[in-house]
Amino acid sequence: MDITDLARGIAKGERRALARGITLVESSREDHRVLAAELLAAIPQGREALRIGLSGTPGVGKSTFIESFGMMLTGQGLRVAVLAVDPSSARSGGSILGDKTRMDRLARDGNAFIRPSPSQTHLGGVARRSREAVALCEAAGFDVVLIETVGVGQSETVVAQMSDVFLLLLAPGGGDELQGVKRGIMEMADLIVVNKADGDLKPAAMRTRADYAGALRLMRKRPQDPEGYPCATTVSALEENGLAETWDALCELTQWRRENGFWKQTRADQARYWFEDAVKNALLAQLETPHARAALAQLGKAVARGDAEPSAAARDFVQRLGIK
Amino acid sequence: MDITDLARGIAKGERRALARGITLVESSREDHRVLAAELLAAIPQGREALRIGLSGTPGVGKSTFIESFGMMLTGQGLRVAVLAVDPSSARSGGSILGDKTRMDRLARDGNAFIRPSPSQTHLGGVARRSREAVALCEAAGFDVVLIETVGVGQSETVVAQMSDVFLLLLAPGGGDELQGVKRGIMEMADLIVVNKADGDLKPAAMRTRADYAGALRLMRKRPQDPEGYPCATTVSALEENGLAETWDALCELTQWRRENGFWKQTRADQARYWFEDAVKNALLAQLETPHARAALAQLGKAVARGDAEPSAAARDFVQRLGIK
Repeated sequence: MDITDLARGIAKGERRALARGITLVESSREDHRVLAAELLAAIPQGREALRIGLSGTPGVGKSTFIESFGMMLTGQGLRVAVLAVDPSSARSGGSILGDKTRMDRLARDGNAFIRPSPSQTHLGGVARRSREAVALCEAAGFDVVLIETVGVGQSETVVAQMSDVFLLLLAPGGGDELQGVKRGIMEMADLIVVNKADGDLKPAAMRTRADYAGALRLMRKRPQDPEGYPCATTVSALEENGLAETWDALCELTQWRRENGFWKQTRADQARYWFEDAVKNALLAQLETPHARAALAQLGKAVARGDAEPSAAARDFVQRLGIK
Repeated sequence: MDITDLARGIAKGERRALARGITLVESSREDHRVLAAELLAAIPQGREALRIGLSGTPGVGKSTFIESFGMMLTGQGLRVAVLAVDPSSARSGGSILGDKTRMDRLARDGNAFIRPSPSQTHLGGVARRSREAVALCEAAGFDVVLIETVGVGQSETVVAQMSDVFLLLLAPGGGDELQGVKRGIMEMADLIVVNKADGDLKPAAMRTRADYAGALRLMRKRPQDPEGYPCATTVSALEENGLAETWDALCELTQWRRENGFWKQTRADQARYWFEDAVKNALLAQLETPHARAALAQLGKAVARGDAEPSAAARDFVQRLGIK
C-alpha cells in the first residue's frame, strides 16, 4: 500500500481513497497501525471541518434527521461526512441495517460521504479509530463531519471529546421524559433538538422543547457558552422544518466560540486528551504479549485458588515483566 | 511500625489494631504500600465473613437500616463490621456527618466495628483500599462485613466485586420509581429491601415491594440464584420489623450458593478481578515518575499546540520511557 498516494488521494477529496484510509485506521493489525500512523502524518494538517457530535436514543428519528440535515447542508454547497461511533454494536455484531440503507438519499449525494459503523471486535480501540477517521475526513476537505452515536452513556463522552459542538436529539414526550435523559448527557449538550414536531406530535414537541429549555436554564453556566446557550429547538426531519434554524444556532454558537478563543482551546484540550488516552492504551498493551498473557493466566489461577493475595501477585507479575 | 505485632493484634480481633491496619492500607505512600502488602501476607488467611454489599440512594434510610440490622446481628452474638465505599465523597471532601454519628447505638456496641468513609484524595485507589480493608476485617474474625455505598453507579460495581451478596435498599415510591433504579444496579441485586414500611408509608412500601418483585421475575435467571431469588422484602428499620426475615433470606441464599459451588466460584472470580485490576494500576503507575510526568507534560503541550499528532506523540512517549 502506497501511503503517499493514499494521502494525496484523500487530500484531493477522493471518496475511494478516504474509504480506504478509514479502513486502514480501523484495522488493529500491527503493520496496519504503523501505516495508519504514516498516513496521519502525511495528510494535510490544518484543514478544519465543523465536527458535530450527535446523540439520540433509538426511535428519536436520528437517521431521518441526519439525512434531512445533511441534504440541507449539501444543498448549500457544503460537503458533509457522516461517521458512526457505536460501542454497543460490539454485542449486536454491527448495525442490522447498514447506515447507507438508512440514509439512501444522502448516500447518493455527491457532496456527502457516509461511513457505516465498523463491526466492533475490539472495544477499546473504537474511540481512537473514530477520532482518526474524523481527522481523515477533515483532511479530505469536508466542511461538516457529523459523528453519530446511540444514547448509551459512555459513547457520548467519547464523541464529545472529538466534537466541536454536541447535539442531543430527542423525541416529543411528557414532562416525565426529562428524567430519561441522564444529567451527564444534558450537561454535554450544546443544543437540544426535539424532532418529530409535525402532525399530532407538534404540540408535544413544543412542550418538550419548553421543558428542556427550562431545565437548561437551571443548569450551571459554562464558560464556553454565549448568552442564550445551550438552547433547545424543534425540528421536523420528516417535513424538513426547523433545520435551517438549528444550523443557524450552531453557526452562531461556533462563531462566538471562535471569536472568544474557546474553539481553539477545546481542540487543544481534546488533542491532549487523546494523547493521554493513547499513552494509557500503549501501557496496557504490555499485557498483550504472549509472555505477559501466560504470566497473567498463571498468576491469575494462583490468585483464584487462594494461593496468592491479589495485590501481592500483581507486584510479582509487574516484576516478572521487568516493569520498575 | 511492627507489622507482625499489628497482624497478631488484628488476628486477635483487637479493634485498635484493626483500625490502624485499615489506616495503613488506605495510605497511598509508597513505604506504607510495602508495609500494607506485608500486613496482608501476615494476617490469618482462610477466615471468611459474610460480605454484604449494600447500596441505596440518600434518603432511603441506609444508616438507620444498617444500625437496626447490625444491632439485630450483634444481638445474636455475631460480630459486625461496617465499611463505606464512597468515590463521590472525593468532591464533597468526605461525609459531612461522620458515620459513627449516624449510627451511634451500633458504634457503642462491643461486637460492632464502624469505619467512617476515608476522605478520598486519590480516586483510583478507593476500590483496592476498600477490598483490603474487608480482608482485614475478615482476618479480625468478624462474622459479617457490611460494605455500604451510595447509589451513584460506578461504586456499586466496585462493591459488588468485593461482596458475597448484594443488597439494594429502596424507599417506598410510586410505580414510576421503578425507572429510577438503573437496570445495571437491579441486575446486581440479590435482595431488594424496601425500607420505611411503617406508618403512612406502609401500603406504598408493600406496593413498591410487589412492583420490584414483579420486575425481578421478568429478568433473566442467573446461574448463581436458587428458585425464588433474587427477591424483594419490606422492612421498617425504625420499628425494627422485617429485619429477621431479610437476614433469613440472605442466609438461605448464601447457604444454597455454598452448597452449589457458587460461593467459592464467585470469590475466585473476584480475586482474579482484583489481581488484574492491580496489574493495570501498576502499569499506569509508570506515568507517575518525575521523568514520565515531565515527558507527558512536554509532549502534551506539543500535541495541544497542534505540533504533534496525538497517536504519534503517544508512540514517541512510550519509546522514550523504554517500554517496548
